[in-house]
Amino acid sequence: MIISIVQMNSVIGDFEGNADKIVNYVNQAFSSGRKLAQPELIIFPEMALCGYPPMDLLDYDAFAEGSLAGLRKLQKNLPASVAVGVGYVDRNRSGSGRALINAFSVISDGKIVFTQLKTLLPTYDVFDEARYFEPAKVRKVFTPQQARIGFAICEDFWWEAPPSPDFRYPIDPVKELLDSSIDILIVPSASPFIAGKLKTRLRLARNTAREGHIPVLYCNSTGANDSLVFDGRSFAVDSKGDMVGMCGWEDEILTIDTTTMTAENLVLAQTSRVQHLSTILPQEQPGDAAASAPQQDPANHDEIEEIHQALIVGIKDYLEKTGFSKVCLGLSGGIDSALVAVLAAEAVGADNVVCIAMPSRFSSEGSMNDAIELCRRNRIHLEKLPIEVPFTAFLSQLSVPFAGRPFDSAEENLQARIRGCYLMAWSNKFNSILLTTGNKSELATGYCTLYGDMCGALAPIADLYKTEVYALSRHINALARQAGKMDPIPEAIILKAPSAELRLNQKDQDSLPEYEILDKILVQYIENNKAFDEIVEQGFDAALVRKVLLMTARAEFKRRQAAPAIKVSRRAFGIGRRLPLARAMYEADSI
Amino acid sequence: MIISIVQMNSVIGDFEGNADKIVNYVNQAFSSGRKLAQPELIIFPEMALCGYPPMDLLDYDAFAEGSLAGLRKLQKNLPASVAVGVGYVDRNRSGSGRALINAFSVISDGKIVFTQLKTLLPTYDVFDEARYFEPAKVRKVFTPQQARIGFAICEDFWWEAPPSPDFRYPIDPVKELLDSSIDILIVPSASPFIAGKLKTRLRLARNTAREGHIPVLYCNSTGANDSLVFDGRSFAVDSKGDMVGMCGWEDEILTIDTTTMTAENLVLAQTSRVQHLSTILPQEQPGDAAASAPQQDPANHDEIEEIHQALIVGIKDYLEKTGFSKVCLGLSGGIDSALVAVLAAEAVGADNVVCIAMPSRFSSEGSMNDAIELCRRNRIHLEKLPIEVPFTAFLSQLSVPFAGRPFDSAEENLQARIRGCYLMAWSNKFNSILLTTGNKSELATGYCTLYGDMCGALAPIADLYKTEVYALSRHINALARQAGKMDPIPEAIILKAPSAELRLNQKDQDSLPEYEILDKILVQYIENNKAFDEIVEQGFDAALVRKVLLMTARAEFKRRQAAPAIKVSRRAFGIGRRLPLARAMYEADSI
Repeated sequence: MIISIVQMNSVIGDFEGNADKIVNYVNQAFSSGRKLAQPELIIFPEMALCGYPPMDLLDYDAFAEGSLAGLRKLQKNLPASVAVGVGYVDRNRSGSGRALINAFSVISDGKIVFTQLKTLLPTYDVFDEARYFEPAKVRKVFTPQQARIGFAICEDFWWEAPPSPDFRYPIDPVKELLDSSIDILIVPSASPFIAGKLKTRLRLARNTAREGHIPVLYCNSTGANDSLVFDGRSFAVDSKGDMVGMCGWEDEILTIDTTTMTAENLVLAQTSRVQHLSTILPQEQPGDAAASAPQQDPANHDEIEEIHQALIVGIKDYLEKTGFSKVCLGLSGGIDSALVAVLAAEAVGADNVVCIAMPSRFSSEGSMNDAIELCRRNRIHLEKLPIEVPFTAFLSQLSVPFAGRPFDSAEENLQARIRGCYLMAWSNKFNSILLTTGNKSELATGYCTLYGDMCGALAPIADLYKTEVYALSRHINALARQAGKMDPIPEAIILKAPSAELRLNQKDQDSLPEYEILDKILVQYIENNKAFDEIVEQGFDAALVRKVLLMTARAEFKRRQAAPAIKVSRRAFGIGRRLPLARAMYEADSI
Repeated sequence: MIISIVQMNSVIGDFEGNADKIVNYVNQAFSSGRKLAQPELIIFPEMALCGYPPMDLLDYDAFAEGSLAGLRKLQKNLPASVAVGVGYVDRNRSGSGRALINAFSVISDGKIVFTQLKTLLPTYDVFDEARYFEPAKVRKVFTPQQARIGFAICEDFWWEAPPSPDFRYPIDPVKELLDSSIDILIVPSASPFIAGKLKTRLRLARNTAREGHIPVLYCNSTGANDSLVFDGRSFAVDSKGDMVGMCGWEDEILTIDTTTMTAENLVLAQTSRVQHLSTILPQEQPGDAAASAPQQDPANHDEIEEIHQALIVGIKDYLEKTGFSKVCLGLSGGIDSALVAVLAAEAVGADNVVCIAMPSRFSSEGSMNDAIELCRRNRIHLEKLPIEVPFTAFLSQLSVPFAGRPFDSAEENLQARIRGCYLMAWSNKFNSILLTTGNKSELATGYCTLYGDMCGALAPIADLYKTEVYALSRHINALARQAGKMDPIPEAIILKAPSAELRLNQKDQDSLPEYEILDKILVQYIENNKAFDEIVEQGFDAALVRKVLLMTARAEFKRRQAAPAIKVSRRAFGIGRRLPLARAMYEADSI
């Protein structure tokens, strides 16, 4: 059988537009110049008709109505010669349970010939599916032309790798399908990017293929929605678990002849970067760790390039889907803002980026020079708006009520907030999206100013620990060197000691532990949900762990008002990590 | 049988402190001077040992560990002479499903003699219980001294009033318990306040009592956690559904003789306000509407006093639980900030409130005078920090890059952001929590400045529509008049046309529809999840509805970074309303 899997970027709630795109892609799947025969079945991702995740738009009955209108449009406009499988939202008509179902149907000759509902509804991290959907009660087999095809919708495929080791889904949909003697498994997904997650997807697919002696076809979404990047990389493995074909990160069709297990790719959207990600296709290794296994450290070297790609997709698609073309950001001369500037230029083009340097009485000359050099190398426009005049103005007004009190965090933060005022004025005046440049180590410990450097519509590197910021910066420089180009990020920026420059000779390490240690503690606390005792048991200094955990717990109120971060880790701050603000916080707080 | 229900304010994660409080309250239940005999069973709220909602603290195994340590402490320290029922978090040891269970156990003589798990796990609005808990598989009957007692844990009691009309829980725990011939139903809850919700609780209790010919004892939490206020008001109805006894909003013991159905109250914590809320105990009315029925308008007159009380509890407990004693806020001379100032003074005492007036070149003289008069009447300290000097400083610095461009939202917002800088400097310098003063109509339409007037740690009136802000202000004045006092909110503030005063002669109604109409459209869109067509069908002007819906959808990015609002409506902005930022937004957007 010839099956095409089409990975596609959907816009949430754009039922008309998504349906048009599906019809267009189906037609392209029949385009000339192809080696394999015409596809008999064409598969789109989970919820391709609606976009994912629609979140509480699902509470509007009009959303299900729109989804069903999109489905009728497909029934009317898809070519009759081919069966097309697509994910969408439908109403639950069983009379019991949640109002909606997460459905996947095959349309053939204008009729819906098969429907499988999703069984395992992810309700952890960024996922809230039990909030909306009633799960499938049965797993069915689609039987076109004597084939027996099973569909595992995204999480249905993940029984083997649950979100936490102490949680086990009571049903294993893949096992049920294998027991029903399917001869092909298809996995329509909307699976958000996490560094290293592709390895788990591949492991699950290989295990299933070998166990069932059947090919497994994995079809993922592309693009990004707010914090979530959908990394595509759809693939097919044969019944021995060997890779037959794989897609990149953007819209693409992978067609497979399931008899000969030959495959053919058709790229539908131009990739934004030169390097094709198939060059970093992970190799299978014995004892390959699951994504749900505890993480020891920040992302390892192999994962840095996929994080790079994810951040570019995340920035680019956020702008496209919110209707903006330009970005601005504050450039301090430090590594965080330098990296965001370079990523922004890669994502939307240097012409669409404006950097604003806002030196203060505490800024070093080096910082300004480094900012200038960074913009020169990357051809980014640089504006300079010193903060001294408004800072002096504020201090003069506050001199009476603040009389006799020492310079403290009030004045430090005020400088950051003046910068926030400049940046937002720029954003408002030139209709340009402000990117905020904070990293995960800062956000964790609260080493950042709410309404100051935290201002911005999107936080590209807020899910990268400081050590990962360094690693990605070095990686981007290494890529440039390989291409015979100058380092995009001047070495001086990478080498200098990090500083907020909010008081004289301030250095991050005056307030924070060394990042190498800090980040390892934070991984245990945030990604692995380890508490005080467990982290100390791993050999970290108890006083240091206590300090880090308390700083992190106490900064929750800042993160509650933070810009959405592009998720690259197993646990990002934001919608996937929900904590109370008012709570017990002892000196020896265990959590 | 003599049963005490104890409503109690728990601190999330303070297992030691909560356990100590439980033991203390049990001992107080035996205090002298009581008319009824000693209680044989004492009931605490759902999760009283852990606080509710712990949110993702539950992902830490240390949380369940702490909860179980608290339980052991209770087993050790509770008097042997009485059975005590308490809610807590336990590990799910069944080997299947989620890692945790929401448990309620009765401890007697140091042993756990009965446990009922929660069956219906609310996973809508602000609730995420399916994210953490495995539901109960069975409903059991507790049988002390020949009595047959059933426990319905919070949502277990709500089968009859589901969160939306198109959602029906497949199990009705109360019906199962009635079918098991219980002779008392006890409902341990952590039920957050919504205006009018008490009526539904009473309706459900009366219906159950009459259906089963049994008394129903409802035991709720008190206090507040971030956005959620727990309004206590625990009560008992007899087997005819008649009210036997009821508590106020703070910690209190209600003891009931279930044979004679006589009751006795013991107040444990001093109420913060003079008026006891039993004076607004809702009367049963024929055809009493369910809280889940579509809402027609903003809160009605009867609900205003309970909203008043909820906001005071919300402000007060947020400060207590985050360890602050002082608040500050910007006072514009308009009604929103005036109301927040008065509420803050009621909650934490006028001595702990500082108001800051920050007039601009566009502020009217009336605004400043009204601010002065408000503070005079309420004995609140008023600071004056004009924004002209920093505003001029910013404009001078921006004159080159902004040259030739008209004064627009950039300069309007800049003024609001300068005020944000002042307020946060004050907050930082004096360790005082900044209250933000925006209302729900503004937040909906985006008629507010991110990082400007939206700055603040808590948003007391962000779940009140502008028309409700007026109603509550008038109500507070009426209460004062009844007590022979001067209006806390000067009439001039209530009567003047609302204005942001960010440009010359600006009025809200230049940009927004009349609030009377706007708020009704917003209720349909936000509380009732009605889409464009459905709202127009109700008789509203189509162009106006389109404008309001688009303004609201487009302002989502601001709300994502907003301070937590104290929830008083069925649907507040914040953790209970989760929407994507990047999404389809047509001119004729249906949602």
